[in-house]
Amino acid sequence: MTEKKDGAVFARTVLQQCLHATLQVKPAEDQSQAQFVQIDRGMVIYICFFKGATDDILPKMVSTLLNLRLCESDSGRMVSVLELPGSLLIVPQATLGGKAKGRAMQYHNNIDKEQGLCLYSAFVSLCEKELTAASPGGGAEAAVKHGTYGNRQVLKLDTNGPYTHLMEF
Amino acid sequence: MTEKKDGAVFARTVLQQCLHATLQVKPAEDQSQAQFVQIDRGMVIYICFFKGATDDILPKMVSTLLNLRLCESDSGRMVSVLELPGSLLIVPQATLGGKAKGRAMQYHNNIDKEQGLCLYSAFVSLCEKELTAASPGGGAEAAVKHGTYGNRQVLKLDTNGPYTHLMEF
Repeated sequence: MTEKKDGAVFARTVLQQCLHATLQVKPAEDQSQAQFVQIDRGMVIYICFFKGATDDILPKMVSTLLNLRLCESDSGRMVSVLELPGSLLIVPQATLGGKAKGRAMQYHNNIDKEQGLCLYSAFVSLCEKELTAASPGGGAEAAVKHGTYGNRQVLKLDTNGPYTHLMEF
Repeated sequence: MTEKKDGAVFARTVLQQCLHATLQVKPAEDQSQAQFVQIDRGMVIYICFFKGATDDILPKMVSTLLNLRLCESDSGRMVSVLELPGSLLIVPQATLGGKAKGRAMQYHNNIDKEQGLCLYSAFVSLCEKELTAASPGGGAEAAVKHGTYGNRQVLKLDTNGPYTHLMEF
């Protein structure tokens, strides 16, 4: 469901809960092995921006996603990822903007690559700020990790129920 | 993106490509271990039905999802899961119907449990039929597996890029 009743969607996110997740951030090359980031318990955020999206939407997006009660605490209560406290794995996912035309998927409404990268980077930074602010003790356990924009997102996910949610902004 | 320009959404699906996926279909109990199903290469379909959904939408849903070119073949070409040929893991996912109200998620538009189970079972059967019809040789490699409706969907996913898509009907 969208946040808005009418009007354009500027960003689409899919959220999944995880016990552990690993994401490739650099593919293997002749001289080097592939590089990965990983998180333990927390939330995977798949994200795609659409044409017309600007920085303006980011603070509300981050505040909403990090404060929604989407995570199950040890006692079975629903809490936010900040309250858990859990880590974040942010995965750029242009395919989320796909629209079926016949048997093919088209991505005409996706934002262009340069703007998308800017928004993606700013989104990641804001998430890092919010997570740091929420764990004044240093928050060694909770971390923000993220994929490399434009790359293939080689992902492994281990869940106790993904509790997949869709949030649009 | 939705298939319709206007009107209600009756079903929401999220699609992810996988190299391997494992799903719990029966939790551990005093006298028995947990039971799992698994698929190798193929597609995970997370599915949620909304109020007002009927059997009428299922043939088009199944035909669309199984024939859309969402999967990457060995040669890098985009093909359908039937053409791959790949397996299907169908995951009932009521959380996909969530709508934020303040910091809480509400699921008021989700179909009731009994009707949801009927539609889910019929959806699974139709997928099985389509997959069998598409692999007249027996299709030993491609299979349809699915989660237990109403249960926690304990899932492990291994991908070479999930290529997450949203399709609504």
